[in-house]
Amino acid sequence: VNIIKLCLVGFGNASKEFSRILIEKGEWLKANLDYDIRVTGICTNSKGSLINHQGIDLKTALREISDNGKFSQESPDLVNLNTVNTIRASKADVMVELSNLSIKDGQPAITHIETAFDCNMHVITANKGPIAWDYNRLLSISKQNNLKFFHETTVMDGAPVFNLVKYTLPGCKILGFKGILNTTTNFILEKMENGHDYDESIKEAQSRGFAEADPSLDIDGWDAAAKTAALSNVLMDAKISPFDVERTGISNIKLQDVLEARNQNKKIKLVSEAYISNGRVITKVYPCYFNIGDVFSTVDMTSSLLSISTDLMGEISIIEKNPEIQQTAYGIYSDLLNLLRDM
Amino acid sequence: VNIIKLCLVGFGNASKEFSRILIEKGEWLKANLDYDIRVTGICTNSKGSLINHQGIDLKTALREISDNGKFSQESPDLVNLNTVNTIRASKADVMVELSNLSIKDGQPAITHIETAFDCNMHVITANKGPIAWDYNRLLSISKQNNLKFFHETTVMDGAPVFNLVKYTLPGCKILGFKGILNTTTNFILEKMENGHDYDESIKEAQSRGFAEADPSLDIDGWDAAAKTAALSNVLMDAKISPFDVERTGISNIKLQDVLEARNQNKKIKLVSEAYISNGRVITKVYPCYFNIGDVFSTVDMTSSLLSISTDLMGEISIIEKNPEIQQTAYGIYSDLLNLLRDM
Repeated sequence: VNIIKLCLVGFGNASKEFSRILIEKGEWLKANLDYDIRVTGICTNSKGSLINHQGIDLKTALREISDNGKFSQESPDLVNLNTVNTIRASKADVMVELSNLSIKDGQPAITHIETAFDCNMHVITANKGPIAWDYNRLLSISKQNNLKFFHETTVMDGAPVFNLVKYTLPGCKILGFKGILNTTTNFILEKMENGHDYDESIKEAQSRGFAEADPSLDIDGWDAAAKTAALSNVLMDAKISPFDVERTGISNIKLQDVLEARNQNKKIKLVSEAYISNGRVITKVYPCYFNIGDVFSTVDMTSSLLSISTDLMGEISIIEKNPEIQQTAYGIYSDLLNLLRDM
Repeated sequence: VNIIKLCLVGFGNASKEFSRILIEKGEWLKANLDYDIRVTGICTNSKGSLINHQGIDLKTALREISDNGKFSQESPDLVNLNTVNTIRASKADVMVELSNLSIKDGQPAITHIETAFDCNMHVITANKGPIAWDYNRLLSISKQNNLKFFHETTVMDGAPVFNLVKYTLPGCKILGFKGILNTTTNFILEKMENGHDYDESIKEAQSRGFAEADPSLDIDGWDAAAKTAALSNVLMDAKISPFDVERTGISNIKLQDVLEARNQNKKIKLVSEAYISNGRVITKVYPCYFNIGDVFSTVDMTSSLLSISTDLMGEISIIEKNPEIQQTAYGIYSDLLNLLRDM
């Protein structure tokens, strides 16, 4: 049996759910794929950090966080190291980047990934920052070191978008895409269709846990722009950052606009779009009217849609239906399985 | 450079379009993947059959068919062999099965595939019959002989459905699916929504080239049942044949029904469905009402939709938008590229 050691950077909801999948699937992975997956490092800013080269007891770690919000002071695994040094000390084979995103520059996730590559670790990131801001440089470091760099979860959680193109559309050139990729704005616009005002809608999105305390990153289109940049960089070799995405958020959309649209059998959705013009990749985020009957109008609540235009396969679309945190965790798990297969 | 020899069984629209892709991408495949793809055999019932172990000139073959509807009597490659013996004589590495489907038993395609495996050839089938009728046995022969067996094109043309699960949903169990998979009935129902009667709608589908001269296989749900069986066999290990699919076609749907549905903001679609009940895979084809606003109601014209339920990834859907023959040919090409990658 092959032992594969992971270092988890961040231990929030997605990371905890991924740990539960590892606990649940551990025996299956041993029996079917001959891999013994162990977590040798967990890094957090506020909950403490753990190292155990034989493998951290994930059930205990989850219980401690659930009971006290942090790892036990008595834990023999507890280390007093910053994140970069915990990554190094974990001696893992794979670093899983799940830290909080700074959407304006992709840090500190980029530094974490550089550290992992420097320690000869493969990288799985669920954090979109590095893909939106620094994809080409990080990919090139990974290739120079013969390391894998996976990032399926950064757009549409575990629904395959990058892997859809990589594994199932071989030989296709991606000519463009159009998608509904930001959950918070989609939820708010739908609440407004039902007559709720803007502030009320944001509050409900926050209370359900998918809008940030400061919702401006969603409302102003920054999250959608980061996803647009990530998709363009990976699928269309755009070499852009979120600053290059022409960005209009939904803050100018009034309840009146949404209700008038509804009366005309239309819906307003925040769209992420990319296409090629004069050999350049043009990217945009903007509110767009869709007729009832158009598939884009059916993307409700926290669902997402990505429609991809290709040279050989025409237009295909993938829809993720109202995901929960489990679908984010599955994205990381699917990256891990693909990594093991490709190793 | 690695020479890979193909034998094409059937030389209808999809096979000809696939040949055009091979001509167009030949240099790219050599330069980028180090593969020199040659067609050493083409089998047809009515156009003649060709063998050339150095590689048939595809441009000439396409021109002859276009000019005269059959291969030239002067061609030095012309052979007087039946299909099975042409497959054997082609000495190909990969047999591509594109013959006319007998939807009631999967023959003669099943025999062609057995012949190919017997000659140590990998198999790509665009013909759904073998997958609907005899998947498990053929898969097991392929495994015993360490040969590949690809069939992406059999459902939704080149849109990834089998490969979506195989390559992008690792570790997921498929709990069921629901789809709109038959183009002819979808087109007819949409024409009826616009006030055209049944006979008129069938005639237009025939004149556009996607309904058969005898449309009963579509109308009575046989085509949808074959696709349902194929999906269930591959994705859910159902081990069924199209006879096991509970099947209701659209022949009892009257123009009046469609128009009444429209007045109630509903659409009628022919649905393919599978789910697990008491450990058994239950499969059904039936006309179903969908509300406007449901994604199923937006699948128009010749588009298709497959929605897959999984244990770890929730529900994801893939849509193919109004495909042309090029998308069928791409499905075969994508299977070829995946086969080369996995070889």
